[in-house]
Order: sequence, then structure tokens, then C-alpha cells
Amino acid sequence: MIVEMQTGVSQEEVDAVVQKVKSYGWGAQVMAGTDKTVIAILGSNTGRVSTDIFAVYPGVEKVTRIMKPYKLASREVKPKDTIVSINGIEVGGKRVVVMAGPCAVENEKQLTEAARVIKDAGAVILRGGAFKPRTSPFSFQGLQEEGVELLRKVKKQFDLPVVTEVVDTEDLELVSRAADILQVGSRNMQNFSLLTAVGKKQRNMPNGSVPIPVVLKRGFSCTVTEWLTAADYLLAEGNDQVILCERGIRTFEDSTRFQVDIGAVPVIEKVSHLPVIVDPSHAAGHYSLVPAIARAAIAAGADGLLIEVHPNPKEALVDGLQSLTPSDFGRLMKELRQIARAIGRDI
Amino acid sequence: MIVEMQTGVSQEEVDAVVQKVKSYGWGAQVMAGTDKTVIAILGSNTGRVSTDIFAVYPGVEKVTRIMKPYKLASREVKPKDTIVSINGIEVGGKRVVVMAGPCAVENEKQLTEAARVIKDAGAVILRGGAFKPRTSPFSFQGLQEEGVELLRKVKKQFDLPVVTEVVDTEDLELVSRAADILQVGSRNMQNFSLLTAVGKKQRNMPNGSVPIPVVLKRGFSCTVTEWLTAADYLLAEGNDQVILCERGIRTFEDSTRFQVDIGAVPVIEKVSHLPVIVDPSHAAGHYSLVPAIARAAIAAGADGLLIEVHPNPKEALVDGLQSLTPSDFGRLMKELRQIARAIGRDI
Amino acid sequence: MIVEMQTGVSQEEVDAVVQKVKSYGWGAQVMAGTDKTVIAILGSNTGRVSTDIFAVYPGVEKVTRIMKPYKLASREVKPKDTIVSINGIEVGGKRVVVMAGPCAVENEKQLTEAARVIKDAGAVILRGGAFKPRTSPFSFQGLQEEGVELLRKVKKQFDLPVVTEVVDTEDLELVSRAADILQVGSRNMQNFSLLTAVGKKQRNMPNGSVPIPVVLKRGFSCTVTEWLTAADYLLAEGNDQVILCERGIRTFEDSTRFQVDIGAVPVIEKVSHLPVIVDPSHAAGHYSLVPAIARAAIAAGADGLLIEVHPNPKEALVDGLQSLTPSDFGRLMKELRQIARAIGRDI
Amino acid sequence: MIVEMQTGVSQEEVDAVVQKVKSYGWGAQVMAGTDKTVIAILGSNTGRVSTDIFAVYPGVEKVTRIMKPYKLASREVKPKDTIVSINGIEVGGKRVVVMAGPCAVENEKQLTEAARVIKDAGAVILRGGAFKPRTSPFSFQGLQEEGVELLRKVKKQFDLPVVTEVVDTEDLELVSRAADILQVGSRNMQNFSLLTAVGKKQRNMPNGSVPIPVVLKRGFSCTVTEWLTAADYLLAEGNDQVILCERGIRTFEDSTRFQVDIGAVPVIEKVSHLPVIVDPSHAAGHYSLVPAIARAAIAAGADGLLIEVHPNPKEALVDGLQSLTPSDFGRLMKELRQIARAIGRDI
Repeated sequence: MIVEMQTGVSQEEVDAVVQKVKSYGWGAQVMAGTDKTVIAILGSNTGRVSTDIFAVYPGVEKVTRIMKPYKLASREVKPKDTIVSINGIEVGGKRVVVMAGPCAVENEKQLTEAARVIKDAGAVILRGGAFKPRTSPFSFQGLQEEGVELLRKVKKQFDLPVVTEVVDTEDLELVSRAADILQVGSRNMQNFSLLTAVGKKQRNMPNGSVPIPVVLKRGFSCTVTEWLTAADYLLAEGNDQVILCERGIRTFEDSTRFQVDIGAVPVIEKVSHLPVIVDPSHAAGHYSLVPAIARAAIAAGADGLLIEVHPNPKEALVDGLQSLTPSDFGRLMKELRQIARAIGRDI
Repeated sequence: MIVEMQTGVSQEEVDAVVQKVKSYGWGAQVMAGTDKTVIAILGSNTGRVSTDIFAVYPGVEKVTRIMKPYKLASREVKPKDTIVSINGIEVGGKRVVVMAGPCAVENEKQLTEAARVIKDAGAVILRGGAFKPRTSPFSFQGLQEEGVELLRKVKKQFDLPVVTEVVDTEDLELVSRAADILQVGSRNMQNFSLLTAVGKKQRNMPNGSVPIPVVLKRGFSCTVTEWLTAADYLLAEGNDQVILCERGIRTFEDSTRFQVDIGAVPVIEKVSHLPVIVDPSHAAGHYSLVPAIARAAIAAGADGLLIEVHPNPKEALVDGLQSLTPSDFGRLMKELRQIARAIGRDI
Repeated sequence: MIVEMQTGVSQEEVDAVVQKVKSYGWGAQVMAGTDKTVIAILGSNTGRVSTDIFAVYPGVEKVTRIMKPYKLASREVKPKDTIVSINGIEVGGKRVVVMAGPCAVENEKQLTEAARVIKDAGAVILRGGAFKPRTSPFSFQGLQEEGVELLRKVKKQFDLPVVTEVVDTEDLELVSRAADILQVGSRNMQNFSLLTAVGKKQRNMPNGSVPIPVVLKRGFSCTVTEWLTAADYLLAEGNDQVILCERGIRTFEDSTRFQVDIGAVPVIEKVSHLPVIVDPSHAAGHYSLVPAIARAAIAAGADGLLIEVHPNPKEALVDGLQSLTPSDFGRLMKELRQIARAIGRDI
Repeated sequence: MIVEMQTGVSQEEVDAVVQKVKSYGWGAQVMAGTDKTVIAILGSNTGRVSTDIFAVYPGVEKVTRIMKPYKLASREVKPKDTIVSINGIEVGGKRVVVMAGPCAVENEKQLTEAARVIKDAGAVILRGGAFKPRTSPFSFQGLQEEGVELLRKVKKQFDLPVVTEVVDTEDLELVSRAADILQVGSRNMQNFSLLTAVGKKQRNMPNGSVPIPVVLKRGFSCTVTEWLTAADYLLAEGNDQVILCERGIRTFEDSTRFQVDIGAVPVIEKVSHLPVIVDPSHAAGHYSLVPAIARAAIAAGADGLLIEVHPNPKEALVDGLQSLTPSDFGRLMKELRQIARAIGRDI
């Protein structure tokens, strides 16, 4: 950390800060510039304390963090790419992974048709929500337990792993019955209790228990730094099977529902070892805009996509407007395959 | 709702929308303008369904909602101001209510001193967190159960009701042991499971059980409309003791940590019956900026304030930089009293 | 426009609004719903007046615009794509057009090398600023007249059309000496005097005068709607040779300098006939992030790119950090060509 | 500036940066921490160069500026408050200055009535636009020269100084005929050509020429730092009669048109010597919200207000919805006087 002192600061004020630095076992190097005195704090884990600890001292103008607040998610801690593996499907490897399906599980017919359509088109993971976080208490909240059972049934029938959202610690056990990947939604990215519980969740396997892979959606108003720091909550519990999902951020623009931060894809690749996918559907808000954003995501280097597809969007109970029809999805998959090949990957 | 059709739409496309409208038992009035055809949907509870239901139809350009998505929190449903009552202290009445104390409960000495200081200066409710939602898993997460016990002890000693945060459904029972007001934090404003659980929580009283008052902080990137819709989750459970708390929104500005949306105060007063308070501390991020924002909040018509005060900010474990010292708080309370009187209220 | 009246509005209040509507020669259709009365305003040019004209009337709750405020830039007015032609190079056609060069013209050697490099790699238009809008008066403001002369010289030498920025009406004549395309920068997108002057500017040709093509960069905090309405200023002067340029918007994110609104590309394609290009350099703020954003732009359907390339970024006077080196640019052009072909275009 | 090197950087990379630092005549202090090497740049005018100059070097992770980019507007350069004086009215002193009047000058009757109303209520400066920057070319653009003449006439009649906007360098001479204070609007805050011209503009006085005071409105998406750096353009021309005006920033919120950044008032007071006023009208967007924001501004410490008042808002050509009626304005002035007195000032 770098502590910048105000102009005209006293020696006592400088000393007090240096004293505090030393109380943490860190080194303090004082630089008296022509205009300002600056104190550099040298130590290996300064990223773990708040800058406030020094900023609150008299005579301090500003404290700037140099170590990032996230640690386990950073490429400095683990230079090699993390590959998340779901029943042999690898996210973060050469192949671009498409996860698709309806926003909400509505009934068996809908889910079965959706599964057939997306598998035929080349998607390898089925998405579908049994628990839906809705802004109004008067909206459809998902089929819940019945939805989980439908997901279990349909995934077996089509041999498709399932990604589905968990919205509360209390439902974690239930949702895990169907989930091959647990999704933590945008509004829960900083629900730290949920993150801790999800990070701890294990699945029993013949040779011991293993963590369940997690898709961690970016909070729609959270920075990349906050997102990776939230991922640290999962990683700190020993779960390294974390897939980041960019789904659009909230800005002043209103012609799309959220604005995909396409630059976040190369930023993540640069600073973190975790794979990143993109959800073009929630951001676009309108089916006609989904294909362009999906293509852009692949071209930018995303490791996969999370796309909403509904057999009959007009009858969808949730988010029908942003869902692709089966034929639109089929067409899009062909386009995406071309883009993937153009950058040396495949779908 | 108003459905605007695209230029050059066919009669069949218009008819399909009208049919869908009628399937909900609503009326549809078609207006063929010179450029565009517009369909008005007339019914009493159109606010409860998504605009997507119509927007997804071919030939539809845009659907505009006229009914607000929130209902129970609106002044249309309840024109008269709601007054929240905590042990005889009224929030939403003539008197401006100041809640103050440390960000986090750290130890008995700290909490006792804080309680004494804020009571002496005229604050009537003690704030202090036992559970802290922290962006990094490596930060201090609060004293938890020990913190709850300290709050119970100190509130009795000083006869000060306590407002404290609940971050997870699992902790609700524990936190309620100390809380006279439950706080739902900014990052949990759209944690709908938590809202439902908090809305249901009752306290046993001699004459039956009563709901526990709730401070619902605004999500730092949520609109006023989303905030009131989140309040509907609490109200829908029969808990009408809801205090809204503006605590700053996230924008591009970086000279303060968050930016208080001062206009939200008169907006809330206009569209909702619920009282609204302001937290200047988290928004300011720096103690030197807290007084000006606190004064502005009272002048704008806020029903109260939530202010961080620490006996010794330099030693604070959390957010020391934004905490007022006892003497700064005493001085501020005098200023606030003047402002309150200038607008015909008191503190 | 749709005028929504407050609950419990009087007949007189409704009549007053209807009267006002009629004073514009428009029709008013009153719909008395169960909760609210709504007045639809029917007329062909309601987009030209402010909603305030009705919103200010007593009893009015909200006025919603149905006609977009922009007209000439809309696809409704001109369904067919506009193709902007610069010395035979078409922007908005099948071929993706790459404009590249240094942020600022610094000296002849720098500009000559840049021109050679970008031409060799396949770019067809040279960019370079002679006038630089700088946030601080103490920063390098561009070579101005000397820069214009260098652009004239180098463009002849390499037979490359030039796009360069005009920052003030007073410099328009001077800048036009070198500019084959005039650029209006992000900070001037709503400098309406400048837009009007640029829209009027003509170049004398053997067979009469013709308007000079314009690149209109999006204001970094302007909506797509405001951007197209600003384009109307150019189009209203009879200049239809307008290229829109998305260059990133300002949000709360700080890992990139601005955030490219990739969804704006398909939105523009849907609602406007004007071609759209993307500037990945100013948004990225760092050369390492430019290629991913550039690829995404092409995949999303952009008609071209505006990229900063500098023979020696370390010595650049302006924005060196976001400039590609010649070898990076060569590599990127190969990648872009693959992406363009994958979507049936070429570079 | 502080240059943070990447983990595992080579000695050559560190040396190259140090060499570059020295080429500016500055000192470089290298600190090899346990994780990272950091280079502190020590010199008196490092605020004037871009951080890019170092960030572009291989091995550099991040460059952090310690000196602010603005200089002349900072309190460090001039600790004492600047007081702007207009015909004996002081902005930045003890008295809160209210500037009021219509958004646009429409005709003599309107302007005369507005002047009478605001003077009677206690406002001391008349506002009114002759040139209006409008988002659409089809909107009313102001009376222009005729408006300037009306302002001249009415200001003499009522002995009220006038603040009015200049939107283009070309109109500066004309607008200055009526303007006692020149207003640079939000959309022109970074129109650096205009700032330079306005900063240079002088008024001939018996004892030589003096600069014309300027109200510099904050760009609706510009940071406080950018705003003060823009003020440096005016100050650099020798004009120190600069009044800053906060008028709301653009965020995601839509219940008000812009959101007043109330925290900017104490921030400005802390870091700059320039006076700051607030325009509650453009931010509120609706007359009913103006009084609360105006009261908040005074309570926060603003030195004045810029308020829209129209004799008959229903007939206003521009922004009628946000204009106060004469009686609303009279009532507000009484409230504001109470607030001003509560904080030891007066109106």
C-alpha cells in the first residue's frame, strides 16, 4: 500500500503512520518528495487489510492499494489455467462449451423439448431454473422441488449435465440433487453466506467426496475485482471448480437490459486462472440481439455461453422475450461454430 | 400496459396480441395512429405480469408498463404515512430519529463507550453489527454470537433499542435476540429468500406476536422502483413496519465511495407511505464528508439517519475511516437539530 | 405519446390535457381504465415535442413517448442501409473497413512509419489527430496546423484517405484540408453548434460540392437514442455520409478505461440505416486488451474499426498505453480477417 | 506517481522505467517488496504528464497518480476561498446566492414577469437562456440574438445581473452583451475550445478590462476531478472568477432525470478554493422534487442555487415540467432562508 500524506504534514503524523505499519510486521519506507511525503508499506499480505486502517490517521490524504484484494482467484497465485470438468466436459479448455435451455423449468413437456432441441444443435449442458429470484413477490417463483425432480428426470433421459441456480442456503441440499453445476446468480454474488455454503458443498463419489462445480455470475453492478474477491469465498472453501459468468452490467443505457462488459473477458483471462463464460440472453433482453452478443463473446475469448432457449417463447412464464426459438438457436450454433474455428477453437 | 406495434404491422399480428390480452380477462383498446398502431391494455392488476408476455409477439415494438410493479409499498394502496414504532420511538413522525454506533461490535468496552456517547448526544437507537458481510473472505466477519450477546447486554444497560444486520436466514433467530430493528443490508436487498424470512419473523409479546421492524437498505445499484418492489416482499408477509434506508448508489464518481441519491428522499415521500432514512457514512466513505450529507438528508425530509460513530476510529476493525469521533458526533447533532427545527421538525 | 393520469383525477383535468393535445392538431383518445385514465395522443410528428408539454398539467402522472425523438437516422424513415463512400472505400457494405494510425500526429517520421505499417497490414484509412481535446490545459494539445499539413503530405504519399478530428467550428476549414472523413469526438457528440457546422461543410468537386463524410463518436455517457438524435443534426443539414462509432461508455468498472457497449452494434443495425464502427483502443485503455475487443466488434457485426497504432508506443505523446505496436497490429489484422470470413464478410 | 511492477520483473525492466523517470528530471526510488517491486517517482509537477508514459513499459503492472491532474483549481495552490463578485453580489461568501428565472427566454412578457417574481422573492441574479443546446435539431433552439436583447432590457429594468449560457465560441461576443455571468453548460464542460475562449473573454471597465465571471456546470458524467481540471482551462487564461455548479449526474436511476451528487459539495469545499452552487431543477426533472433538493443543497453547504422559475410553466417552450410557479418559488425561498440561518448563513 502507498500512503500519501497531505501537504504540510508534521513529522509526528508521519511517525504515527509508520508506527501503525510496523505493528502489522510490515516495512515502511518514507519518501519525502518536493510537494508531498509518501510512505510505502512493504509486506506480503497487505491485500488482506483495509486501506482505512491507515487512511483514518491525521495528515493522511489517500491510501492506494497495490496488492489486489483477491488472492486465490488471481493468476499470480496460480499461473496455469483452471479447467472445470463436468462429467468429462471441460470448461476452460480448447472447446467452447454451450449451456442452453429455458430460463425456468415449467413442466415436463417444455423441459423435454428444450433438452432435445439444444442437444440436437450441439449444446452440451442443460440450463433451467427450479428456484427463480424474482424482483416482485407476486411473480412466478419457480416450480421449486417439482422443478428439481423434472431436471433429474430429463437430464438422465438425454444424458445432459444440468446447471441450475441455488438462491438460498436452505435449498442447497435439494438443488444439489439435480445440479451438476450450481449457479449463484447475479443478485447473490455478494451473498457471502451462500457463497461459503456452496463452496463447502460436496458430492459423494466412489473414491471420496468432491466439490460441485459452480457458475458464479457477476453482480450486475460489481467490478471485476469484487467478482474475483467473491470467487475467493468459494476457493477458500477448497472448491476450485469455479466458472465465472459475465451477464451484463447496469449502466445508463436503456436499449438493452444490461450491457455486456465484453472487455471483462480479456481482463479475466489476464488476471485470473478461472474460466469465464458469457450469458448474452439476460443482457440483451430481446431475442433479436442475442446472436450478435453471443458471437462477440466467443470472438473475445469466452470459454462458453449460457443461452436461453424455449420451445415456445410466447408461452414462457419467465423471460420469454429474451429466449431463442429452437430454429433461431440452431442457426446461431452454426454461426458460433464458424467463429470458434476462426480463433482456433471448436464447439 | 401500452403495446406499441411496429410500422406496417398486419391485422393478424394485432389480433394475436388482443387475443392474448383477453386471455387474462383484461380489456384491449386498439388505436390506429397515422404512423403506428397502439394497443392499450385495461385491467386492474396488470402490474403483476411481465411486459415480456406481450413483447414477445411478432409485430410488437415495445411494451410500456403504466402500473408500477410494486403494490403494497405504494401510496396509491395506502395514502396515509406509515409510522414505525420501536419501544415508543416513532420513525416517520414529526421527530427525526438518529440511529448511531459503530459499524461492527468489537468488544464490550467499545460498544459501551459508543452507546454512552451517542445517547449523550441525543441519538435514540444504537446501531452495531454482529454479522458483517465483507467483500473478502479474509476480512473480519464480525463477532457473530458473541456480538449479539454484547448488544443485548449494552442495550439493557443504556435502555437503547438496537438496529443490527441479519445476513442469512440461518442467523435470523440468533440476531433477533438482540435486534429491536432488523437491518437488511444493501447487498441483500434482492435476496428474496432472506426478505421473506425476515418479513415473517415475529416477536412474542404479552398480547400475541408482532412483526419486528425492518430497515431495508437500498441496493447500491437498484432503482427506487426495485427497492419498493423488494419492500413488497416484507409487506406481503404482513410486516408493515418497514423503514427504507438510502445509503448511496454506485456511479462513476470516485471522490466519495457511493453517491447519496438525495432526490430519492422526496421521490419516496411522493410514491410510498413508508418512512425513509439516510446513511451518510457508507456513502461518504470519509468522516470529513459525513456531516454535510447528514445535514442535507434532514433538509431533504428524511425521517432519520443511520450514522457510524466509534470511540476510537483509528482502532476500528471495520470502516474506521467513515466513523465519526464522539466529539465530531456531538457537534453534528447540534447542527442537525438546527436544521430539523428550520423545517418544523425536531431531533 | 401516452399520458397517464393520476388515480382520482377530475374530468376537468382530463379535459385540459385533451384540449392541449388538440391545440397541436393531434387526436386524443381517452381510455378510462379501472384504476387509471389514460390518454393516447395520435399524430404523425409527436416525436418532435417534449413530453413535458403534457406532463406539467395537473393530474398527470407520467407521459411516455412512443415515437423516438430521432427521425432522419431511423430505419423507419430510410429502411435501406446507408453506405458511406470515401474515395471508393465503402463503409457499411460487405467489406469490414479498418482505420488505423496514431492517436496524435507527432512528427513526419512517426506518421510516415505509421502509414506504412497500417497499409502493409491491410488497413485502408489512416487516422491521426492534429487537434486533441485534452482534459487538462497543461497536456499536449496536438500539432494543429502543422499536423494538418503532415496529414496532407503523408496521405498523398501512401494514397490513404485520412480520418481526423475537428474540435471547434473555427478549425473546420483548416482540418478539412486534410480530412477525407471528419471525426466528431465523444466529448463533442452533443456540441450541437459543431454538429451543425460539420453537417453543412462541403467539399468542392468537379461536378459540384458534396458533403464530407463524418465519424460521429458516441458520447461516453450518452444513450443510443441520444446518439442517433445527435446524428439527426448532421442529417438535417443534408449530409447523409455519417458513420457512427462506439468507443465505450462510462460505468463503475475500472479494469478497463471505458466499457464497449457491444450490444449497441446490433441495436444500431436494427433501428438505424447508418453504418457503425467500433474503437477498441480508447475503451480498452491498454494495448493487451485491444485485440479481444476488436475481434468481438467484428463478430457482433460492426462495419469497421478505428484502432490506434504507433511505431513506438513508448515514445507516444498521447495514449501510448492503448496503442498497438506494428507487429501486434499485423497479428491482429490476420485474426480479424478470419473472424470477418467466419461471418461472410472480408477485410 | 507510483509505478508498480509485475511479479517476476527483470532488473532491465526496472532500469528502463527508472531511466525514463530521470529523463523528466525527476527522482526515482525503487522499493523491492517481498512480492512486488515498486518505483516511486518524486518530482514537483508529475501531475502534468499522463500515467501512460510509464505504464506502457514492459513489466509495468499499474501506475497510480498521486498528484491530482488539476492544479490551479486546487486548495493546495490557493488555500483561501475564492469569492466571485458580480456587481457587488458575492458568491462564495456568507450569503447564499439564489439565481432564478426561466430555462429559455421566450418573450418580453414572460421574462419581465419572471424577473419581477424572482426579485420579489429574494433572488438576486436572473437566469434565462437565449441559446439553448437541445438534443434534437427539431426542438426550439432559443431566441438567440433577440433573447440577448430581451435580457439586456429586462436586467436594466429590474437592476438584476444576468447569468446566461454560451454554447459556441462564435456567439461569445453576442452573449457577453447581456451576460454578467457566462454559463458553460454540462454538455460543454469538456469543450476545451469554448473554455479557453470564455476564460479569455474580458469586459472593458473604466479602469481596464476584467474577466467575466463564469458558471461552469459539471458534465453529467464527469468526475469531480475532471470538473476541476476543466476549471483549470478557465483559470489558466487568468480568469479566477469561476463558480462551479453541480446539476446532477447520470446514473441508472430513472425516478429523477439526473441524480444530484450531494457529496460533491463538501468534496469541492475540501479540495478546491472555488465556490460551488447547485441546480436542483435539471436534476429533479419535476417541479415537485425541486424544493427538497434545493433545501438539501443549502444544508450541505452550497454557496448558491440556480433554479428554474416560469410565470406559467404550462406554456413554457422548454423544460416546463421542472419549473416552479411564482407561488411555489416564493414558498421555497422562505424555507431556504430558514435552512441558511440554521447553518449560520443568510439568503
